[in-house]
Amino acid sequence: MKSHRKELWFEVPARRGFVNITPQVEAELAESGVTEGLVLVNAMHITASVFINDDEGGLHHDYEKWLERLAPFNASGEVYHHNRTGEDNADAHMKRQVMGREVVVAVTDGELDFGPWEQIFYGEFDGRRRKRVLVKIIGE
Amino acid sequence: MKSHRKELWFEVPARRGFVNITPQVEAELAESGVTEGLVLVNAMHITASVFINDDEGGLHHDYEKWLERLAPFNASGEVYHHNRTGEDNADAHMKRQVMGREVVVAVTDGELDFGPWEQIFYGEFDGRRRKRVLVKIIGE
Amino acid sequence: MKSHRKELWFEVPARRGFVNITPQVEAELAESGVTEGLVLVNAMHITASVFINDDEGGLHHDYEKWLERLAPFNASGEVYHHNRTGEDNADAHMKRQVMGREVVVAVTDGELDFGPWEQIFYGEFDGRRRKRVLVKIIGE
Repeated sequence: MKSHRKELWFEVPARRGFVNITPQVEAELAESGVTEGLVLVNAMHITASVFINDDEGGLHHDYEKWLERLAPFNASGEVYHHNRTGEDNADAHMKRQVMGREVVVAVTDGELDFGPWEQIFYGEFDGRRRKRVLVKIIGE
Repeated sequence: MKSHRKELWFEVPARRGFVNITPQVEAELAESGVTEGLVLVNAMHITASVFINDDEGGLHHDYEKWLERLAPFNASGEVYHHNRTGEDNADAHMKRQVMGREVVVAVTDGELDFGPWEQIFYGEFDGRRRKRVLVKIIGE
Repeated sequence: MKSHRKELWFEVPARRGFVNITPQVEAELAESGVTEGLVLVNAMHITASVFINDDEGGLHHDYEKWLERLAPFNASGEVYHHNRTGEDNADAHMKRQVMGREVVVAVTDGELDFGPWEQIFYGEFDGRRRKRVLVKIIGE
């Protein structure tokens, strides 16, 4: 069994944003030499997501608006007890649960085994600082 | 390490629906010859889900109603910018995030290692056309 | 390839609660002897979750309140058809979809390959009875 590990670093300049990281994951897969196996891609921070969806700007606008409706930003410790710790990111911990921590992608013939529109995104909900994604590949 | 890959095709006749795909996944596991390992089952389309829950009609009714409340269908490009592309399925991209893209299931002694009520479902949120699920099995 | 399997049992005394299970998963990893691979941790019941987030009491309070807003408890079969079966836990099946069934964690150098705040939780949404989590580890 082969295994390969890489941390990808991001600093999203706004509080929230989506970054297409498919090319970086493909580069790690090529470097790993794995042709059959699984790739795990996960946020290493608990206010960020890794998810698979469409690379379409209108959709990203809709996600932003929708997540803000489901779990609105509010710095107050009255609204979110987590923010009594001095943080202001309780909403980000919720948005991350909706969008997910991780994806697992099949590797077939040395490629990410994707449907026609699948792209891997880093979803940042508490940005403006350096944060990491883990890529772990196992197989043969 | 053994690996096995299969695409399962579905054409759900309505816009939305849930299909129990456990028997098909079990059939692929049997064909793979894997007795210890992991099965990845993922939607290959970004307006559909694969998830594990109960095969109970009342619950599926409740999921349908609940998802419509969290992310209502609306074809308008005023409500969802994604629909300015000519699509009408922005809501489906959101419903899919709530229900998830994929499941990973343990394989033990050649069987899906399940609790008493676990069943694998394909969740369609933009149907009436042929779409695919990927089953990838790795192990020994 | 090595594989290791363990069921963890819980009986949460209230209907809902969060339990940090990271130490138990680490103990299983040590026992497995796997140094490079993947750990799957999943709820074996469909009204419970396994997820990764912060071990902070204020946040858990916020999650409880937020999940109740997204998918309120209601025993009535008028509100949730699932409850016509005699159950009163339809809301738990929804809360579990938001928080997720499972996590997959990388194993590197014999350790859970975690960011600074990642902790694994069992999320119970229909407790007061014995329920199980599966830990499955594969690798070398």
